[in-house]
Amino acid sequence: MYAYAALASLGDDVYGEPSTAALEAHVAKITGKEAALFVPSGTMSNQLALRTHLKQPPYSVLCDHRAHIHKYEAGGTAFHSGATSILVTPSNGHHLTLADIQEEIILDDNIHFAPTEVVALENTLNGTIIPQEEVIAISDWVHSKGKKMHLDGARIWHVAIETGTPLKELCDPFDSVSLCLSKGLGAPVGSCLVGTTEFIKKARGFRKLFGGGMRQTSILAASAAYALTHNFPKLIDVHALSRKLEDGLKEIGVRILSPAETCMIFFDPSTIGVDYVELVERADALPKPIKIGGSRLVLHIQTSTEAVEDLLSLLRQMAEEKKAAGFVPTDVNGKPSGNIYVRAKKPQ
Amino acid sequence: MYAYAALASLGDDVYGEPSTAALEAHVAKITGKEAALFVPSGTMSNQLALRTHLKQPPYSVLCDHRAHIHKYEAGGTAFHSGATSILVTPSNGHHLTLADIQEEIILDDNIHFAPTEVVALENTLNGTIIPQEEVIAISDWVHSKGKKMHLDGARIWHVAIETGTPLKELCDPFDSVSLCLSKGLGAPVGSCLVGTTEFIKKARGFRKLFGGGMRQTSILAASAAYALTHNFPKLIDVHALSRKLEDGLKEIGVRILSPAETCMIFFDPSTIGVDYVELVERADALPKPIKIGGSRLVLHIQTSTEAVEDLLSLLRQMAEEKKAAGFVPTDVNGKPSGNIYVRAKKPQ
Amino acid sequence: MYAYAALASLGDDVYGEPSTAALEAHVAKITGKEAALFVPSGTMSNQLALRTHLKQPPYSVLCDHRAHIHKYEAGGTAFHSGATSILVTPSNGHHLTLADIQEEIILDDNIHFAPTEVVALENTLNGTIIPQEEVIAISDWVHSKGKKMHLDGARIWHVAIETGTPLKELCDPFDSVSLCLSKGLGAPVGSCLVGTTEFIKKARGFRKLFGGGMRQTSILAASAAYALTHNFPKLIDVHALSRKLEDGLKEIGVRILSPAETCMIFFDPSTIGVDYVELVERADALPKPIKIGGSRLVLHIQTSTEAVEDLLSLLRQMAEEKKAAGFVPTDVNGKPSGNIYVRAKKPQ
Amino acid sequence: MYAYAALASLGDDVYGEPSTAALEAHVAKITGKEAALFVPSGTMSNQLALRTHLKQPPYSVLCDHRAHIHKYEAGGTAFHSGATSILVTPSNGHHLTLADIQEEIILDDNIHFAPTEVVALENTLNGTIIPQEEVIAISDWVHSKGKKMHLDGARIWHVAIETGTPLKELCDPFDSVSLCLSKGLGAPVGSCLVGTTEFIKKARGFRKLFGGGMRQTSILAASAAYALTHNFPKLIDVHALSRKLEDGLKEIGVRILSPAETCMIFFDPSTIGVDYVELVERADALPKPIKIGGSRLVLHIQTSTEAVEDLLSLLRQMAEEKKAAGFVPTDVNGKPSGNIYVRAKKPQ
Repeated sequence: MYAYAALASLGDDVYGEPSTAALEAHVAKITGKEAALFVPSGTMSNQLALRTHLKQPPYSVLCDHRAHIHKYEAGGTAFHSGATSILVTPSNGHHLTLADIQEEIILDDNIHFAPTEVVALENTLNGTIIPQEEVIAISDWVHSKGKKMHLDGARIWHVAIETGTPLKELCDPFDSVSLCLSKGLGAPVGSCLVGTTEFIKKARGFRKLFGGGMRQTSILAASAAYALTHNFPKLIDVHALSRKLEDGLKEIGVRILSPAETCMIFFDPSTIGVDYVELVERADALPKPIKIGGSRLVLHIQTSTEAVEDLLSLLRQMAEEKKAAGFVPTDVNGKPSGNIYVRAKKPQ
Repeated sequence: MYAYAALASLGDDVYGEPSTAALEAHVAKITGKEAALFVPSGTMSNQLALRTHLKQPPYSVLCDHRAHIHKYEAGGTAFHSGATSILVTPSNGHHLTLADIQEEIILDDNIHFAPTEVVALENTLNGTIIPQEEVIAISDWVHSKGKKMHLDGARIWHVAIETGTPLKELCDPFDSVSLCLSKGLGAPVGSCLVGTTEFIKKARGFRKLFGGGMRQTSILAASAAYALTHNFPKLIDVHALSRKLEDGLKEIGVRILSPAETCMIFFDPSTIGVDYVELVERADALPKPIKIGGSRLVLHIQTSTEAVEDLLSLLRQMAEEKKAAGFVPTDVNGKPSGNIYVRAKKPQ
Repeated sequence: MYAYAALASLGDDVYGEPSTAALEAHVAKITGKEAALFVPSGTMSNQLALRTHLKQPPYSVLCDHRAHIHKYEAGGTAFHSGATSILVTPSNGHHLTLADIQEEIILDDNIHFAPTEVVALENTLNGTIIPQEEVIAISDWVHSKGKKMHLDGARIWHVAIETGTPLKELCDPFDSVSLCLSKGLGAPVGSCLVGTTEFIKKARGFRKLFGGGMRQTSILAASAAYALTHNFPKLIDVHALSRKLEDGLKEIGVRILSPAETCMIFFDPSTIGVDYVELVERADALPKPIKIGGSRLVLHIQTSTEAVEDLLSLLRQMAEEKKAAGFVPTDVNGKPSGNIYVRAKKPQ
Repeated sequence: MYAYAALASLGDDVYGEPSTAALEAHVAKITGKEAALFVPSGTMSNQLALRTHLKQPPYSVLCDHRAHIHKYEAGGTAFHSGATSILVTPSNGHHLTLADIQEEIILDDNIHFAPTEVVALENTLNGTIIPQEEVIAISDWVHSKGKKMHLDGARIWHVAIETGTPLKELCDPFDSVSLCLSKGLGAPVGSCLVGTTEFIKKARGFRKLFGGGMRQTSILAASAAYALTHNFPKLIDVHALSRKLEDGLKEIGVRILSPAETCMIFFDPSTIGVDYVELVERADALPKPIKIGGSRLVLHIQTSTEAVEDLLSLLRQMAEEKKAAGFVPTDVNGKPSGNIYVRAKKPQ
């Protein structure tokens, strides 16, 4: 990738750099939008989108209570835009529906309220795909109320690959989409924000204000272009490997909290008597160490079949050790609690 | 009240006006705090408190999802302080508990998060009293984590009167309390914020910045002092009248959504075939009109026994009309849905 | 005034209170604007105006470097609106001109800049009147660039009285004007912001957000209405008294830093050997004490001719004492330095 | 540079990436600070520094009226931190002095004011070096008042090279310094912010919030490390070339607005009858085109002696053409007006 990137042009992106402009044009095209903007991170991409859609306070942004923009961006919605977050819990336990949104959205412009100006979805969210017909129903209704739709599509690549739906079709219901080039795709740095020409022009101004206007970005843009061409198609194999891992976990008797729709599995090994902290330590001590953070397993294009097999072997062995020590495996079914993301933490 | 107020001093509160200073000293004393600040509204009082407690972003404020600071202050927490709101739904359906708060509070200072710096309670909230032992448990734990406690005590007067607990005792668990002088107490304008001398000094600066530094406030302060002495004790009669109204509603077959603990009742007349819009119109057309906004009935010191009886008579009559027209009254029990506050709105 | 005010209506201004609505309608009418909004302070009035005009960052506000909105509102322009201030020093030493503004305004929407969206004038500023033809020239040009004009007219009453220009004519060049009811006019509390119906509707929303939505404001509004009728015409006498004071000061040999155009004089008694601290102490010790803060003398409708004479007598006496002690009076002419407002401060 | 960079480590900087950590450690060491933070741009570096120093509003930042943080960061100080800028014009026409700062700084914590919490210098500013003894005098006094010192040292490399002063000595008077790796040094992307360990920890949190937390930054960090080693020493030649250019301009009769202390010259060719727009077009049409933006000429490590000679030849030729057409060259002396930075703009 870097060999390719080193041949890129050497301009200053503040003044329009060719490799970066080419990447932006390409991403705009495949998502069916007028324009794109290359930014240093997915957090900046999402926050620029909200900041650009939100014109004058008071206002609020509606999202899933587990959304990245609410939980993992350090309160950016309030900090950058002074916007209140309206947090919705999916009534079906999986993803937001139109009915969920209609119940919580603030449309009344009474002076006591902060009207909802943007509805933000995330797809996938914790690896779960929102059915496209639900996305369209939400979008049609939200637009009929004169409000904007934003998609945190950091992992939208996975939806495209897994469902065979063109990116353009996935992005059509949204006024803006943020796409991550460095997570699933494996580019070193950066995300792209897409939308109308006017929207991206305004977002470009905010990028400068946020300090995200970088200079010679060609090496990053070229790496991202490489990733888009070469790594994107490999995601189908990542998903297949995820399902293989899920099947193995089930076979061993590990509870699946959220199934392997794309590249993520949330699991609970307490059913075989194993806790996360112990597993983390044992996986780290393998001849080829595997890094585990807690209940979430994320596979990517560099994850090998061997690593998946090593992890399954380890869990199989631990299950047997526990049984030998008298542990009686418990039921793997039942509804997971609200928060399926559990970090491995030693008791204090 | 105004006859009394017209005798008040004529200073400029920006430079310390005697009647206002006297009111502040009095409110500080009865709440057991070092200092108090007179402000134009309850919204300003709450927002100044949060703005004063919150030092440097990122940070969040935890509150009940129905709290005034979240729902009815136009998104002020995000606007003035850039703070994210962590919204909690009481697991017992009535009021927040320590367990609810421990589940949702953000104590981790990982850079992805906006740590919770203030836990804000509201007492009463929708007329419901939080048991003082729960308040103390929450406060002890929150303080042990180095965080602040704020009370939106707009209606704390009702708790004091109803439970016979001194204001000081009710305010002790909090670093700051906002008390409304114009709602239950009937003063024309204003709220008081109380806390330590240092806290109030900083809040006074923010009051100036918010544009809440008024000049000759003596007439307002004197009116408030009058209300504190003369109207506060009358609340016990308001609460008795509320219970009388609740009993009457039950007898007629109207469903009670939230009972008359203090001065508010939430009711649902659909059990006798009546909808809010129809009731609003009929109540407004009485010889002595009664103003109703929807599911919430709020009684105050000027509400007469006669008005309560008129409303009950009207509902009794409407129930009979509906029965005559063939309506079969429905069950008055069953759990209310999340939102018990319903505004009367004509179908569009 | 309070006797009159106590007869006012008793409504809740959040829901439209009649006395307040009447005051707002009256102020709108005399200023020739569609609508008005009663607020607790001049600071809130100015800050609401800026916050309402400013739609989406980045943006800046251009004003005189001595303007109240920049110097005495605790940085509110940056705090509430996130706006940069473009500060201009009048090249003529008195008031801003069109040329001054053209030199400094930011019209370029290059992403490095925060374009100027509002030009804010203050009339009078430190008691100085801006010639109306200059105001009109500025307004015409600023509007031709698609930008807004705001007037901090806290003391615009003085301009109207002194120049015989109707308020409406003075306000015509501006999209919004803030008028103070409590300074020159002598009402206890409050200012009015005027503008279009749409502008005031939006400003009313921001007033709620700022915590400036007061409840039973009738007593304040009625006092203000009284002041408007009874106190406004008295300003002509205040101005006459100011000139009398200025003449007296000159005769004694005190240097005039800024002449008595309306109700303010800036003076420098060092020409007769007197410093501010000494003068403050002596004036405070008079049989009828006079409060002096520094170089600024402000006269109002309650200032008596006797007080002016007492102050002149005192200065005359001090001048003689200094001469007796060997002080040689210095020249009273020469250009004052930039900052003519000097507070009396004891050396530390 | 890229050949070197492609060998760098492949970690995720959000979780501490080795090449980036090594660059940060190196920059911290040479500037004599405890810690450093790699960020996408100089704008982010400056704004993070201010945002980290500023704890709780109201507050203001004092800087030169020409400072990058005020003029070219889109109003970031107000937008990100809600801070007012106190803008000072150097009384000596070159750089701020202690006396200038003492005249304008706001130390009074009266509630009408936004006290100055940070004094920010820029070195070089428009290519002008601030004498280090002045920097030290300012720093000592500012620190004695309990306030912070920030340096926008985007071009501090030039000061070090030109004056022979070690970077550490130049940075010692400051609590934080921002250093640009991509301007003078020629790295593709990035700046470093340096300060205490605690300061950088907090700034790292704000970087995440601003969306500046990049992932695999190794390729950028390695390029910067290369530039630091290989390009930094070449600046001495750049400065020599600048002086050569200045001498040539003077000889031709072009007025020098700001001399070539380091790598910048501000010039005014109207003395030889040439305007900027005409010059820009002619320079762009040279066989080897030279890009000129207006009055500012910036030389860098890739500027060739040939380009300088080409530009001088062109100007010499244009001067002669103008003379031939009857233009009488004007005086090259006299004080430049406030704004020496003039962009070439066609009349409209």
